[in-house]
Amino acid sequence: MSMFGEKQMREVSADEAWLRKYPERTVLAASIDSKGQANLIALGWNMPTSHSPPIAAISIGITRYSHQLIHESQEFVLVFPSYEMRDQVMFCGTHSGRTVDKFQQTGLTPVPAKYVQPPLVKEAVVNMECRVIGELRTGDHTLFAGVILTAHISDEAHQVLFNMGPDEQGNRRFRGF
Amino acid sequence: MSMFGEKQMREVSADEAWLRKYPERTVLAASIDSKGQANLIALGWNMPTSHSPPIAAISIGITRYSHQLIHESQEFVLVFPSYEMRDQVMFCGTHSGRTVDKFQQTGLTPVPAKYVQPPLVKEAVVNMECRVIGELRTGDHTLFAGVILTAHISDEAHQVLFNMGPDEQGNRRFRGF
Repeated sequence: MSMFGEKQMREVSADEAWLRKYPERTVLAASIDSKGQANLIALGWNMPTSHSPPIAAISIGITRYSHQLIHESQEFVLVFPSYEMRDQVMFCGTHSGRTVDKFQQTGLTPVPAKYVQPPLVKEAVVNMECRVIGELRTGDHTLFAGVILTAHISDEAHQVLFNMGPDEQGNRRFRGF
Repeated sequence: MSMFGEKQMREVSADEAWLRKYPERTVLAASIDSKGQANLIALGWNMPTSHSPPIAAISIGITRYSHQLIHESQEFVLVFPSYEMRDQVMFCGTHSGRTVDKFQQTGLTPVPAKYVQPPLVKEAVVNMECRVIGELRTGDHTLFAGVILTAHISDEAHQVLFNMGPDEQGNRRFRGF
């Protein structure tokens, strides 16, 4: 423990420090394999990274099936789910597209995108069509930067899904904004 | 406008779609010049990007002074400000360290870090000491990925600062979580 005058700062692991990061927007990324089969992954690590052109960054674990698909196809759709989609998002975050058809299992509706092969998600609040313009390996994840070719929003009053962090039992708490 | 059965999705610019991204954590990044003068920049675009090792990603506009400093020194401190620091964060986001000493002007207190040259911010909720391990140019910004060498948290009950998006007059709204 280090003392800073009357205030105290406590040295902790990065994991413990990140517990103060919430709320964290939980998104889906839609991708597609070489046969045209679509997949969905749930991601907590996503943000804008350029105004002009508009670019989004997502971080995906290197062992994930979506990592392979997006690296190969260089395209993804960045999806902001509604709060109502929280159980479907949890399903996407806890199953692998290597063995499960996530659109079929969740009942989410794929809709053809305008410029990219992966589909939009009809039930979502926001869909952004992205083409990869850069990748950066960062430890156990890869940062994919995708230029946003166009975007689609729902005009219904759905709230966007956010992860509020773990409760005392370690379960994820969700909230809409 | 595209019709998806009974639901409507509306095609919009990326800027309009990003209006659904809030709350967005607003952080500071502390950096240092070759003479040891510290600087602070306010950043909305920040996230984790690896568990093991722990890595943080921040996105900085290529024209910003902090972009130059972090590119040159390859170090930064990622700071989660408290809600009480919102005016000081706004000051850091609207002035350039090329002409202003932001620690002096804001009254924020620099505290020596353990492993890196840029200082911690005494009043903050979280300080993470980061060493750059990768950079990716993304449009008008650069993604800096920094391995987190150690972290420090305050045990006081401060809420972390989040940007809730613009109000009807375009002014930033802040909230603590």
